[in-house]
Amino acid sequence: MKRGDEEIDSGFVERLAGFLGFDEERVQHLFEKIYLARNWGKHDYLFRFDKEISRIERGTVLYEKGDSFEVIMGFPKIRRAMVLDPTLKKHFSGLEKITVEEKMNGYNVRVAKVKDDILAITRSGYICPYTTEKAKEKLDLKFFDDFPELVLYGEMLGPDNPYVPKEIYGIDSVEFYIFDIREKNTGNPLPISKKHEILEEYGFLQVECFGEFPLHTAAEQITKIIRELGKKEHEGVVIKDPDMILAPLKYTSSQSNCSDLRHAFRFYNEAGRDYMLPRIVREGFQTVEWDENEAEFKKRYMQLGESILRPLRESIQSVKNGQRLYEEVRIRVKDPKTATEFENYLKRLGVDAIFEEPQPIGNEYLINIKKINKSTNDKTQAIWEGELW
Amino acid sequence: MKRGDEEIDSGFVERLAGFLGFDEERVQHLFEKIYLARNWGKHDYLFRFDKEISRIERGTVLYEKGDSFEVIMGFPKIRRAMVLDPTLKKHFSGLEKITVEEKMNGYNVRVAKVKDDILAITRSGYICPYTTEKAKEKLDLKFFDDFPELVLYGEMLGPDNPYVPKEIYGIDSVEFYIFDIREKNTGNPLPISKKHEILEEYGFLQVECFGEFPLHTAAEQITKIIRELGKKEHEGVVIKDPDMILAPLKYTSSQSNCSDLRHAFRFYNEAGRDYMLPRIVREGFQTVEWDENEAEFKKRYMQLGESILRPLRESIQSVKNGQRLYEEVRIRVKDPKTATEFENYLKRLGVDAIFEEPQPIGNEYLINIKKINKSTNDKTQAIWEGELW
Repeated sequence: MKRGDEEIDSGFVERLAGFLGFDEERVQHLFEKIYLARNWGKHDYLFRFDKEISRIERGTVLYEKGDSFEVIMGFPKIRRAMVLDPTLKKHFSGLEKITVEEKMNGYNVRVAKVKDDILAITRSGYICPYTTEKAKEKLDLKFFDDFPELVLYGEMLGPDNPYVPKEIYGIDSVEFYIFDIREKNTGNPLPISKKHEILEEYGFLQVECFGEFPLHTAAEQITKIIRELGKKEHEGVVIKDPDMILAPLKYTSSQSNCSDLRHAFRFYNEAGRDYMLPRIVREGFQTVEWDENEAEFKKRYMQLGESILRPLRESIQSVKNGQRLYEEVRIRVKDPKTATEFENYLKRLGVDAIFEEPQPIGNEYLINIKKINKSTNDKTQAIWEGELW
Repeated sequence: MKRGDEEIDSGFVERLAGFLGFDEERVQHLFEKIYLARNWGKHDYLFRFDKEISRIERGTVLYEKGDSFEVIMGFPKIRRAMVLDPTLKKHFSGLEKITVEEKMNGYNVRVAKVKDDILAITRSGYICPYTTEKAKEKLDLKFFDDFPELVLYGEMLGPDNPYVPKEIYGIDSVEFYIFDIREKNTGNPLPISKKHEILEEYGFLQVECFGEFPLHTAAEQITKIIRELGKKEHEGVVIKDPDMILAPLKYTSSQSNCSDLRHAFRFYNEAGRDYMLPRIVREGFQTVEWDENEAEFKKRYMQLGESILRPLRESIQSVKNGQRLYEEVRIRVKDPKTATEFENYLKRLGVDAIFEEPQPIGNEYLINIKKINKSTNDKTQAIWEGELW
């Protein structure tokens, strides 16, 4: 059979159908619609789900192993509590205690051993060459020999993260903070205590754990945590069943909503409307849940207004002044070849990016990258040239 | 042929196809898809376009007349200038002067003579029984005898307007302000001078005309007008070719954007995301176009933030307190039968409204109406009951 410009042989389709428990026709259909897509280049043995199919998360990756297949499940979507009380009591009913961990604001990545190679797999199921190099450099790889059946689920954080660069965590370049360990194939997570034990054993960095809280007082305690996190511009928390049987929930700070909005409105024609509105509505629920007085409320709506309008103004003004809109990010590599690979990778994904000359720093190279925001740029420029909305 | 639960006879389809210059099949298809729909009740001879089809605007209405048909074209969509300069110069290039009229914030309505009856036709092409009664009461109907081929395009304004009630125009109950006169069938508008002449002759109220301005200084002059309108919470302006050959443009005040946002965020789950975002982005363009300093900018973003967050907070708090969310509007009728007809009409349109007991006022009745905002209400209540977003 043919999919796009490449052949998927029918024996493969048959084996995969058997493994997934699908009809062969259904598997062929997945390939035709590119819901299931083959990687390119040296990792072309890898297939990723580009859509959620029958409870297999989008971004799930699979490949042949021996007579069968091995699967690395995607990141489960974490649902949001709009208000803590009564949502936590309802969602976690039956539990005595819940665990609260920090939700860090970085780039989601799974790291696993795949056919004797260590790979960093993005949320969408791509193999990022830069993230892979960094993961190999930063993580104790012995873990993958000892536990070849386990996958690290974490965040790449820090200023040399070319996706979500943040200075707020006091990281010099990039680090990997792990939040879950899951089994291959089933995707089952380890209980939190077991996860801590293994992560400590191998010296992995892990997202901060604020501890276990009785369910009936958790909302109050999480509110305090969120207020403190907000002061540091940190994102929020993930609230988990200690046994990792019930699905986790997330809850975020106002500062994180505003920070998302600042980014979204800077590139107002790129960011989805479905991205912006919920972040605004959350502010409404939080101010009511926190029973804010008029002064607190005023502070909140000023922050909201400014988070929206200042980046909008800056972008519109920049384009008026003849500048192009872009995001500045950077990477730090030991081998300039990794930068070239990363450049090709972004091109393949359709990202419009300009890589500047590598600058030596210690025994590494810093490379500044301008990611062009063509849609907002073109729209804004057209308006300044007299086009209608 | 059959459409929904009613028969459209094939002779009619044939005649209509001939009139529109469409294939019969195409006309049948329009009926099947309900892109072309028949009115109900006593105006069931009327058909309306529920979608824009081949440059026939949505809301266009037609009916048989003699051997042929008569058409009342819909409201042409007026495009928006995001910035005045250079948009006006580009859009109206070739003109010496342009006319600036106030854009009033009411309910769009066409009034015309249809088969010896005077009807008020809504933007979507329905016949509103309340608006029709009011139009007959308020307008000099001799106009329609003298000019049966002309249609008034205007706004129903004032506090007894159950769609867009506004107190800002100093109107006691409702009034009709006319902004265009157009011919039946072609939809061609009269030149502005001719329009003024006729409107004055029959004593019709008309939207304020700020005058004609030279194209090269218009942006500056309109900016002044907009600032003044904004102070009164008025909406904005429509900028027209005096001969009505080039399409008009609209431009609105910041206060009008914020007022729209206040309404939209009060019923945040009803109002479309595509409605909110452009109103926010306009604020960005206006602050740059007006070259605002930090103090002016701060005032603008505070207003924006408050316009968004205060109504959100009020709605969320109301639902938390166990109240239902609704919009309070009212109508004023001479005959309670009109209220009953209007209630049935809203029901037919799927509007969830509670009509209170008529209160006598002079020789008329005031009837308060609660329009229920079910979607926002249910969503907010679910969240307070611990549902996830």
